[in-house]
Amino acid sequence: MKKKETEESLKKLGKKLATEISKGENPSLEVPIRTLSNIKYDPHHKMIKMGSNVATRYFFNVGHVRKFVQTVEAAALAKELNGMGKHLSLREAFYRMKRTLPDSNINLVDEQEESNEAIEDLELITDTSREQLHINANKMGSVAGKIVIEDGGDIIDWSKMGSGGYSLPSNVEDIIFKKVNAKFIIYMEKAAEWERLNEDRVWEKLDCVIISSQGQATRGVRRILQRLHLEHRLPVYVLVDNDPWGFYIYSVLKFGSISLAHISEKLAIPDAKLIGLTVDDVIKYDLKKHLIKFEDVDFKRLEQISNYEWFKNSKEWQRQFKMMKEMKSKVELAALSSKGITFISDTYLPEKIKKKDFLD
Amino acid sequence: MKKKETEESLKKLGKKLATEISKGENPSLEVPIRTLSNIKYDPHHKMIKMGSNVATRYFFNVGHVRKFVQTVEAAALAKELNGMGKHLSLREAFYRMKRTLPDSNINLVDEQEESNEAIEDLELITDTSREQLHINANKMGSVAGKIVIEDGGDIIDWSKMGSGGYSLPSNVEDIIFKKVNAKFIIYMEKAAEWERLNEDRVWEKLDCVIISSQGQATRGVRRILQRLHLEHRLPVYVLVDNDPWGFYIYSVLKFGSISLAHISEKLAIPDAKLIGLTVDDVIKYDLKKHLIKFEDVDFKRLEQISNYEWFKNSKEWQRQFKMMKEMKSKVELAALSSKGITFISDTYLPEKIKKKDFLD
Repeated sequence: MKKKETEESLKKLGKKLATEISKGENPSLEVPIRTLSNIKYDPHHKMIKMGSNVATRYFFNVGHVRKFVQTVEAAALAKELNGMGKHLSLREAFYRMKRTLPDSNINLVDEQEESNEAIEDLELITDTSREQLHINANKMGSVAGKIVIEDGGDIIDWSKMGSGGYSLPSNVEDIIFKKVNAKFIIYMEKAAEWERLNEDRVWEKLDCVIISSQGQATRGVRRILQRLHLEHRLPVYVLVDNDPWGFYIYSVLKFGSISLAHISEKLAIPDAKLIGLTVDDVIKYDLKKHLIKFEDVDFKRLEQISNYEWFKNSKEWQRQFKMMKEMKSKVELAALSSKGITFISDTYLPEKIKKKDFLD
Repeated sequence: MKKKETEESLKKLGKKLATEISKGENPSLEVPIRTLSNIKYDPHHKMIKMGSNVATRYFFNVGHVRKFVQTVEAAALAKELNGMGKHLSLREAFYRMKRTLPDSNINLVDEQEESNEAIEDLELITDTSREQLHINANKMGSVAGKIVIEDGGDIIDWSKMGSGGYSLPSNVEDIIFKKVNAKFIIYMEKAAEWERLNEDRVWEKLDCVIISSQGQATRGVRRILQRLHLEHRLPVYVLVDNDPWGFYIYSVLKFGSISLAHISEKLAIPDAKLIGLTVDDVIKYDLKKHLIKFEDVDFKRLEQISNYEWFKNSKEWQRQFKMMKEMKSKVELAALSSKGITFISDTYLPEKIKKKDFLD
């Protein structure tokens, strides 16, 4: 069905262009504008979104033609991939599109930025995601927990994945959730924390799913979190270090980001909550011994984040930012190990979940 | 059994120290020296190894005592972990060891480098690996192919892992290989290539296993490659970009590295072979259109690698280095996509395997 949808979107674009050509009109594309001025925070939907500004790009226009042709080539590639049931990475797509025009020495694209932009434009024009166009982002992340999926004809039980877990693909659009016995998801920024929680079988004890990537969540990780959240109403709890970088990871997961504003609706999770580490946790769990002093770059990042529109009116978040600024320090999740090898799994997480001690 | 072995190694150390104490002697540790002067290439075993220089570290010595106590603390932590059947990351181990000595304000360790060094010393003293001591390195990498494992009580079939694959744990020591129907392993540096090969089911068509990490192979990846190679005689073929960095990844996998010379025997695979991309491949498969010009840093790296002792006497490798230097360029594996979406899977790899076209 998804295959059909993508095909329809691409065909619609093709037909529009073919009609214009047969009528002797100048073929054109309506491309939503991706500049900062056309991006804003939508407080109603609680996410960063693109505005409605659109530019028209013409084939018979010396300044437009290169981008026009690149976008059409991206559409042709997406149609080929969708038909074959194959996927390419952005880098592979670049090489695939880098063909030399007949009887010339002009390459259709010379730099990957060109093919990347053409693909992003195509996402907007056809109202599909890059994943639906069969062009994959980075592969990253592990998962374990009380869910059974079907993927590529295989039935995969995320609760029987040993110490390693299931390796998330870059593109999770075709995953079918067969059985969901989990009650919520814990997403964590670090693979090492994931191994801690998996070894301690937190997902079994708390009836949940644990997912990590490494640092900033990849598109694939964000999509699987969002899909489980929307399709199966699983709350998403974000577990990060107590520092501006951890807060930023949370911010992107929840509200989206400027660079991917055009796709926020397919990635953002406005209901996600921060389960820790908060500054209150640092005090409550007596982690002050493990403070790591702020450097200039930390102060700057904290300042930026505390001025984000979506945090500006939150008393709770402003309180966190203020306390962190006064503490002039950050604390890592790994510091919980000082309290006991399995403290995070046996005490910290169960307590936070039981008391619903989340930051929204 | 492995648990017992580790326990024995640690007990042996403990008994030695207890005996010295009860005899009124100055407790001491014999620590192999990890400086560059004690590391060399062993052409017979074809790997980078540590020499036999050893330093004695005493408890009653103001210059030695801090490191001495740290090493003993690392041993105590390893014993606790081994007994519990739990593991810690290096970072968690640091926090766990960072305790304050009673009636003082002295921390046993203040920086992670201290706990890291203590753990490395302990590896050498007890002739175990960090993994055997239950202290984990980075988690990274995906695998698919004709192997069934048992891990943590779960039976996991690497040929039924959908589009994502099995996520390799950081510590693969406890993995049991139940059924090995693969004939060889292809290791690749990039997750995107892995997804290409997995989507095209190369492991099924060629009867093999495909494994990736991201960039330099992690310890876990190197160990699983080595274990499959030694325990099941699977040849290891390395698939990397045609550049000095790809060659370096190959070099480390095969011969070991200076920073982990003390553990080469548990990580290096002297029989590993490079399946591509070679400079000959670039010519044969007509990839000259996709050359990426060398920068200064590439020339420097190439120069360094071509002077490695283990490459110095290889005519074939010197020929590659020379051609690359003359080409003044590198080529990425992804460039094979220009020949066809599944060209690498349908043509390139089957041809290379059939002709045994490897660089040794």
